[in-house]
Amino acid sequence: MTLAPPPGRPLAGMRIVEVSAFVAAPLGGMTLAQLGAEVVRVDPIGGAADRSRWPLAPSGASMYWAGLNKAKRSLCVDLRSPEGQELVTRLVAESGPDGGIVLTNAVGRPWLGHHALTRHRPDLIHVAIEGHHDGTPAVDYTVNAAVGFPMVTGPEGHAGPVNHVLPAWDIACGLYAAIAILAAERRRRATGQGQALRVALHDVALAMAGNLGFLAEAQIGGVPRPRVGNHLYGGFGRDFATRDGRRVMVVALTARHWRDLVEVTGLKAAVTALEGALGADFSTEGDRYRHREVLAGLLAGWFAGHDLAQVEDRLRRTSALWSVYRTFAELVGERAGELRANPMMALLDQPGIGEHLAPGCPIDPGDAARPEVVRAPELGEHTAEILRGLGLTAAEIEDLRARGVVAGPAGAGPVGDA
Amino acid sequence: MTLAPPPGRPLAGMRIVEVSAFVAAPLGGMTLAQLGAEVVRVDPIGGAADRSRWPLAPSGASMYWAGLNKAKRSLCVDLRSPEGQELVTRLVAESGPDGGIVLTNAVGRPWLGHHALTRHRPDLIHVAIEGHHDGTPAVDYTVNAAVGFPMVTGPEGHAGPVNHVLPAWDIACGLYAAIAILAAERRRRATGQGQALRVALHDVALAMAGNLGFLAEAQIGGVPRPRVGNHLYGGFGRDFATRDGRRVMVVALTARHWRDLVEVTGLKAAVTALEGALGADFSTEGDRYRHREVLAGLLAGWFAGHDLAQVEDRLRRTSALWSVYRTFAELVGERAGELRANPMMALLDQPGIGEHLAPGCPIDPGDAARPEVVRAPELGEHTAEILRGLGLTAAEIEDLRARGVVAGPAGAGPVGDA
Repeated sequence: MTLAPPPGRPLAGMRIVEVSAFVAAPLGGMTLAQLGAEVVRVDPIGGAADRSRWPLAPSGASMYWAGLNKAKRSLCVDLRSPEGQELVTRLVAESGPDGGIVLTNAVGRPWLGHHALTRHRPDLIHVAIEGHHDGTPAVDYTVNAAVGFPMVTGPEGHAGPVNHVLPAWDIACGLYAAIAILAAERRRRATGQGQALRVALHDVALAMAGNLGFLAEAQIGGVPRPRVGNHLYGGFGRDFATRDGRRVMVVALTARHWRDLVEVTGLKAAVTALEGALGADFSTEGDRYRHREVLAGLLAGWFAGHDLAQVEDRLRRTSALWSVYRTFAELVGERAGELRANPMMALLDQPGIGEHLAPGCPIDPGDAARPEVVRAPELGEHTAEILRGLGLTAAEIEDLRARGVVAGPAGAGPVGDA
Repeated sequence: MTLAPPPGRPLAGMRIVEVSAFVAAPLGGMTLAQLGAEVVRVDPIGGAADRSRWPLAPSGASMYWAGLNKAKRSLCVDLRSPEGQELVTRLVAESGPDGGIVLTNAVGRPWLGHHALTRHRPDLIHVAIEGHHDGTPAVDYTVNAAVGFPMVTGPEGHAGPVNHVLPAWDIACGLYAAIAILAAERRRRATGQGQALRVALHDVALAMAGNLGFLAEAQIGGVPRPRVGNHLYGGFGRDFATRDGRRVMVVALTARHWRDLVEVTGLKAAVTALEGALGADFSTEGDRYRHREVLAGLLAGWFAGHDLAQVEDRLRRTSALWSVYRTFAELVGERAGELRANPMMALLDQPGIGEHLAPGCPIDPGDAARPEVVRAPELGEHTAEILRGLGLTAAEIEDLRARGVVAGPAGAGPVGDA
């Protein structure tokens, strides 16, 4: 091995072909790209089904697509034509010793499956993201409904399910796919052998419901988990309204957090009296949870009597964990300075969208320089470059374009210009 | 390299020392353990702050702790004593060429930091999970408040924030930590060099708000994202109540999904008339979203007129994505057969908790046999074994135990018995 990737780009040399859409697979690919892998996102001509996902910029460009495909290269190919399929197959097969890696959620295409591709690349690593483990489709929202969380999320007393807005299962699934690729690639370095791996969105959700104890609780405790609104289950944490109409989330996870919180709010005498009267021990998280309503009631009075600035000033002196609630608009408005000062964030100029603050990878490489945050490609931006890399001549590329087998960026002339 | 890990255990040989608590770091370590790495979770004597996190089994054992620490080995050490710190340092330093990896969220302990440990293990890989990138603490709930999601989650018209119950940021952060270790280990194999990496919970949340377009939307669109209840933003998806009082989540992501849904519910004429009257094109996701209330109103009537069994029967014939909402109790009760049939799940007998269905890793190794699902250790279960591995004699181990420097499982005699 002659590889010597810099600390900020530990995956330099690794080459991945991603045929994907929406969140999970694109996030998995982007994570590896931001760590230095060369990731080619392959799209059908005109783009995949996520091409116009909201939110959209005034130009119509998808900010969602741009956010999830940063640092990749883009190849546009007619995926239904045998010639297009052959080009993608060659891209997988002829990608050098650290290539031969496919990440996809397009599980309905036999030519793109492990079985077909491994004939052209015997040491292929193939990671397929599916809905369910039996191959049937699902999306984040349906999986979330299926595994129980919407029935315990949301305001106390609310009837019916509360969906999450954050596609948490897609995120976890995409990160598991990245882990699958890295683990399989480590094994391939040791053994020379490839592998076909699958990650099902529903399995990810089920695994997490199990890992966090929700399944065991239902099996063994037998007591249905209640909907406890914004309370932290099994400990003390809740939101409070300040005098000036803001909201603060406050969490006392440990006995020390709780002691500090009671101290700084001047409620020590009241809490001690309550403790005696109730026969409770608020230094234990169980008792803080059992008596959460009366404790939160006491604290609510204190918060309602102070403006946010006063609350912040007091809470800063405690070990208790807290944050004011912010809107996205506040984050990029009044808090934009904070955002700009974060070394993960950079100002990106994205075609069709314009300049905006965008995140790089949240893994901070320590002493090493963080790699530059790279924008998403335009659809087909690298078509010509990638085809030249496969040994095609300018004339061959132009012929493919003229016959609609490949496409460069929209509005460009011959793809050779890209 | 003589490593030849089987496909189901691609990380065989890798050795990780985890000093952790709560969700993120334990999940990161467990993910690598389930892929074959040897992960030692180091706890203070009596356990860390997550030792009694709810949900609890009737015995008082934490189902949360058991869920997040499967497949690890457990070492209990007095982390405040110089002797205890030296044992952990030796465990990191003397762990062979594929060891020298530390995963921790205990960032306030200088002796456990990269700077101190690298003197004993020059090629150390050190991954620290933090609250904020400046090192200040935070937890999932405070980070969630800070980045905007609670203000757009929950029922339309609800005032105030809606917290998530799923600690989605902890999950993503733990998986990023696993990715950081795998990426750094790949680089170490190529260069021989270690690395200090940091992953901040707040950065993970901020990155995802950016990746999904929420930040760009607020910066460029300038229009505050509305709270749209259980509607899918920018497309068509919502929950519907059936005649027999159940709820179903239905998503029409593509034009085909929508066509199928309209067809199977017999609403084609009504939808076509509406399309004409409104000048809309419901084959586009934007128009399905803009007119979501009237479309959902039409469909709601159909769902309210059918029992769940009929709804399922019809929806099964469509490409539309859907799921009934379930509670955790239903998952392990009426749906337990489905859970048992899932190859990721296994029946575990966990001390203090009993037999229950528990998940392995959601990465399916394809043709290879899935690795066995391994239970969590008892606290200190492997103390003696690990110390013997460092070359300590039975007498030395017993002396450390008698002086309170190390501990075996509670209730056991000399740790040498463990």
